[in-house]
Amino acid sequence: MCHNLGYTNFGHLLEINMDSLNIKDISLQQANTVLEKAKAKAIELNLKMNIAVVDAGGNLKAFARMDGAWLGSIDIAIRKARTARFFDMPTGEVGKLSQPGASLYNIEHSNGGLITFPGGLPIKDAEGNVFGAIGVSGDIVENDNLVATAGVKAILN
Amino acid sequence: MCHNLGYTNFGHLLEINMDSLNIKDISLQQANTVLEKAKAKAIELNLKMNIAVVDAGGNLKAFARMDGAWLGSIDIAIRKARTARFFDMPTGEVGKLSQPGASLYNIEHSNGGLITFPGGLPIKDAEGNVFGAIGVSGDIVENDNLVATAGVKAILN
Amino acid sequence: MCHNLGYTNFGHLLEINMDSLNIKDISLQQANTVLEKAKAKAIELNLKMNIAVVDAGGNLKAFARMDGAWLGSIDIAIRKARTARFFDMPTGEVGKLSQPGASLYNIEHSNGGLITFPGGLPIKDAEGNVFGAIGVSGDIVENDNLVATAGVKAILN
Amino acid sequence: MCHNLGYTNFGHLLEINMDSLNIKDISLQQANTVLEKAKAKAIELNLKMNIAVVDAGGNLKAFARMDGAWLGSIDIAIRKARTARFFDMPTGEVGKLSQPGASLYNIEHSNGGLITFPGGLPIKDAEGNVFGAIGVSGDIVENDNLVATAGVKAILN
Repeated sequence: MCHNLGYTNFGHLLEINMDSLNIKDISLQQANTVLEKAKAKAIELNLKMNIAVVDAGGNLKAFARMDGAWLGSIDIAIRKARTARFFDMPTGEVGKLSQPGASLYNIEHSNGGLITFPGGLPIKDAEGNVFGAIGVSGDIVENDNLVATAGVKAILN
Repeated sequence: MCHNLGYTNFGHLLEINMDSLNIKDISLQQANTVLEKAKAKAIELNLKMNIAVVDAGGNLKAFARMDGAWLGSIDIAIRKARTARFFDMPTGEVGKLSQPGASLYNIEHSNGGLITFPGGLPIKDAEGNVFGAIGVSGDIVENDNLVATAGVKAILN
Repeated sequence: MCHNLGYTNFGHLLEINMDSLNIKDISLQQANTVLEKAKAKAIELNLKMNIAVVDAGGNLKAFARMDGAWLGSIDIAIRKARTARFFDMPTGEVGKLSQPGASLYNIEHSNGGLITFPGGLPIKDAEGNVFGAIGVSGDIVENDNLVATAGVKAILN
Repeated sequence: MCHNLGYTNFGHLLEINMDSLNIKDISLQQANTVLEKAKAKAIELNLKMNIAVVDAGGNLKAFARMDGAWLGSIDIAIRKARTARFFDMPTGEVGKLSQPGASLYNIEHSNGGLITFPGGLPIKDAEGNVFGAIGVSGDIVENDNLVATAGVKAILN
């Protein structure tokens, strides 16, 4: 019988569960394959993209900037990937909620600066567990999102 | 007769009051109890939350991230608690005033980054004196606020 | 037959290993127990400490500031915990290497600011896998380290 | 007769050369090859490394973190690469000059934080023109430098 009760310790009443959590994390091989699939999509669409992959902890795992891609999108691609992992949802979904009058207005001020428009997507396993994220930046957000989607499919397909 | 007049010195007209202020501050025991009550509410609602408590000075006193809670909400929970103490009001009240055209538009740029949507609440004594604050982040803001409210009640009830 | 070869794909020559990594992460129950053990040691030694625990990804998991503990040590405790996880070693070991003339001189400028004197320790399982870290700050570094050591023992003992 | 004199204009004395500069820049293909050669060296030495490549402008071009590599070395690898390009010399050479009493004491405070111990190397063409840099972090600086050297050789050999 195991209950997670934090500081409260009822002694004889409950056993404390001291097990570690077991989680998945993205491997470099997976991250590089995500990068490659995203890059292939960008080439197919004739786009120049910055592509970042972060791990389960939100830390940078792999990055590539295609020749001629916007310099300002290096940081945006990385922030999109982090934002998608930070909230386990597409960055565009966060952006819908961060508009004036919406429930998460100005959430971008947190975490040293979020990017909340489309182009960041969580990377999930078949059971829906998030264990990384991709962020793409370099063109209109619809294209950023197309390229990110192609990257994510490297894992799930 | 005591007046706090700061630098202004009217000489013979007024006595200068050199007494210190006596303020309340939240104890770690109180802060942990606030955390526990908030966490219990989150478990009851089947939510995974980041919960932060700051003291009378706006400085972090206690923090807990429930297993599986959003990574991006660590920073948001702490900023909500600070924002609530910075202005001695619920973060959602600040957020109403920070909208485009409203009186505190983009106040989020101050203090290294505020979070002004619901989920941060001042912690008060029975006389209404604020001596700390709680910030909760991990779900829709209505749920964040419910969990924060449960935490605050640990002190007042 | 599995090889991690990153971008290089020899097609028919090698299979690509697309498995995720399986890692441990610290639970909130574990983190709170580490906090409690560290706090008990601080009380035994009549010290007032800030105590932080980060997870496998270096993200804050739990924090407590004892009543009267230095305000400036909030940030130091958190940075010590992160530094210990960032390099999977005691912060004091990093500090020996970051001295003038030593091999990691001024490493403190990385990662938004490291703290490299004693008081931060990795949290390991019985096999030596690091899956979190503790950082303690509030007194002389020898005492910070004693309290951190007591916290770590909550997991390994 | 061509002289680049910037703001100074001697009127009739000199012709103004309005030609653009023609510079080399590292391609993504080159950067990825540098990454792969560095990674192969790390695998040969049984090391887990963070490897970053920046372009002629000092901007991130490609990055890879090997599985299990130190989290704190993500930022250090990128800063080493930038530092090597910022001054077109090995980071360890900058570090010799940044010691207490030396001519560039505490230069690490510039540029948002430099890393000046070994592991960062400029990437040059056969004529010695610098058009990128590599930064490696994950082990003792001698090994970081060995891996960075292997990466640089991908271009020159």
